[in-house]
Amino acid sequence: MKQEVTVFAPATVANVACGFDIMGFAINQPGDIIIARRKPTPGLIIERISGDNGKLPKDVTENTAGIAASALLKDLNEHSGISLEIEKKMPLGSGLGSSAASAAGAVYAVNQLLGEPLATKALLPYVIEAEAAVSGNIHADNAAPALLGGFILIRGYDPVDVISLNIPDNLFCALIHPHSEIRTREARQLLPKEIPLRTAIKQWGNVGGLVAGLLSNDMQLISRSLQDGIAEPIRSKLIPGFTDIKNAAIRAGALGASISGSGPSIFAFCDGEAIATAVANKMQQACRNTGTDSTIYVSPINRNGPKVLATVDG
Amino acid sequence: MKQEVTVFAPATVANVACGFDIMGFAINQPGDIIIARRKPTPGLIIERISGDNGKLPKDVTENTAGIAASALLKDLNEHSGISLEIEKKMPLGSGLGSSAASAAGAVYAVNQLLGEPLATKALLPYVIEAEAAVSGNIHADNAAPALLGGFILIRGYDPVDVISLNIPDNLFCALIHPHSEIRTREARQLLPKEIPLRTAIKQWGNVGGLVAGLLSNDMQLISRSLQDGIAEPIRSKLIPGFTDIKNAAIRAGALGASISGSGPSIFAFCDGEAIATAVANKMQQACRNTGTDSTIYVSPINRNGPKVLATVDG
Repeated sequence: MKQEVTVFAPATVANVACGFDIMGFAINQPGDIIIARRKPTPGLIIERISGDNGKLPKDVTENTAGIAASALLKDLNEHSGISLEIEKKMPLGSGLGSSAASAAGAVYAVNQLLGEPLATKALLPYVIEAEAAVSGNIHADNAAPALLGGFILIRGYDPVDVISLNIPDNLFCALIHPHSEIRTREARQLLPKEIPLRTAIKQWGNVGGLVAGLLSNDMQLISRSLQDGIAEPIRSKLIPGFTDIKNAAIRAGALGASISGSGPSIFAFCDGEAIATAVANKMQQACRNTGTDSTIYVSPINRNGPKVLATVDG
Repeated sequence: MKQEVTVFAPATVANVACGFDIMGFAINQPGDIIIARRKPTPGLIIERISGDNGKLPKDVTENTAGIAASALLKDLNEHSGISLEIEKKMPLGSGLGSSAASAAGAVYAVNQLLGEPLATKALLPYVIEAEAAVSGNIHADNAAPALLGGFILIRGYDPVDVISLNIPDNLFCALIHPHSEIRTREARQLLPKEIPLRTAIKQWGNVGGLVAGLLSNDMQLISRSLQDGIAEPIRSKLIPGFTDIKNAAIRAGALGASISGSGPSIFAFCDGEAIATAVANKMQQACRNTGTDSTIYVSPINRNGPKVLATVDG
């Protein structure tokens, strides 16, 4: 019987320019480490959280990892003693799907610890439930790629319809996290309840283009489709130097760039790792010119979601 | 030198449920016949139009076939004498892209008559120009499939970005034209200038799903994506028996059904010709039950656009 499972769970980029609320993809770094361990007394606890500067609650009813794992255990009618340890390896409130990564990592680790009673895809409702509990809204655009990996389209929510999109092998992501925090709920509240039909039509033209570009390996079509007329014009105002950083990415050869989630992180798609590295460096330089420190990451699209790093049997 | 070219130009279905203003596809029937003939005196004329009950103007500055062909000839600096004959083989104002078919057929036939000075794709601006002249708006969702065939995504209009989508071989279209006329301009004026963001998000989720379904031969994903929260709820009220006809199509096995263009025609996608035939018959029966005569068509997606039926050399 497994006594301990250590899992890596990937950060995710949601929205993806035109794909507001319906698209997200996973990346290889950053990501959280979640450890699920058996303990002698029944029930689930969060034993330890590190890397969060003390900001995250250890109460299982308040932390996405705890909420997701509790809901899973309840459905499995499983009362074994399990403790979770969460090593936050990514910034909170950065637009990189931190809460989804912890939730996905937790249910994945617990499911592994219990001998995989459920298929990975069947864990998704628990991650979504946890996300809804902390954000106040049902969203799967971080949850689904954090759990399933890859590039995900959420076709609809009634019921949740998750589509894994085939993508070009050479598609890389350059990412910058400027060291300033945006609260998702506040960023969401900035958005209008109604939008012009003309703007909406442009957006869904680009959604169609992006999906077609991804599935047909057409990097130039992907590039032309990476436009957002909905969230970016509004949320970018909350990100100091956004336009400079985005322009630096494009000048350095990125296919396109936009806000990751609700920001402040900014992603850029690139054709190949070398360009992505150059783009990340140029974005960091542009960010520094505005007086803001940042962290950069370069990654292919993560195709697998959470990954078992170590297991202790006994 | 060619003296006469006879061309078939296909009808088209625009909007395609979720793809309002950005998608369209061509079908094998109905379609117009356009004949371009050399004549001794310089200049372009429309010599004859049949099948229109006298409704269409023969003035080349008022008819889409004449407008498109004139614009082409002007760009080619070509002053040869050419007369056009148009056999309308499809109903006017039916939502089947009648004006685009005539324009596409005219430029295609004239280009053939002149020995193909331009590639087919280069003829698209003339068809779009003609459509804009009669509709008051720039649209390519009938023009592009009428000229190029296939299933077309118009990613954007600045500049016009036309993407030909790969589609499943077995995708068939059942079509019904209830014998009542809707004016495109009036139907368009019914639509709101602003739409709820939530509605827009649903729509672009379905656009992403439809494109992914088409490119990955996933008939069930196509089926789930054929939803329109924008135009159909409003325009369907102008079509007597719309809900009955649509429900009849779904019950008979259609993947989905919605308004063709701005109506009153209704298309249904089907997995195979046999189902499409059954669906068309059931739609006609439902339409008859509302007291409206109709014409039905069954067709695969037309993959080639206009087609030369006959050529006279001399």
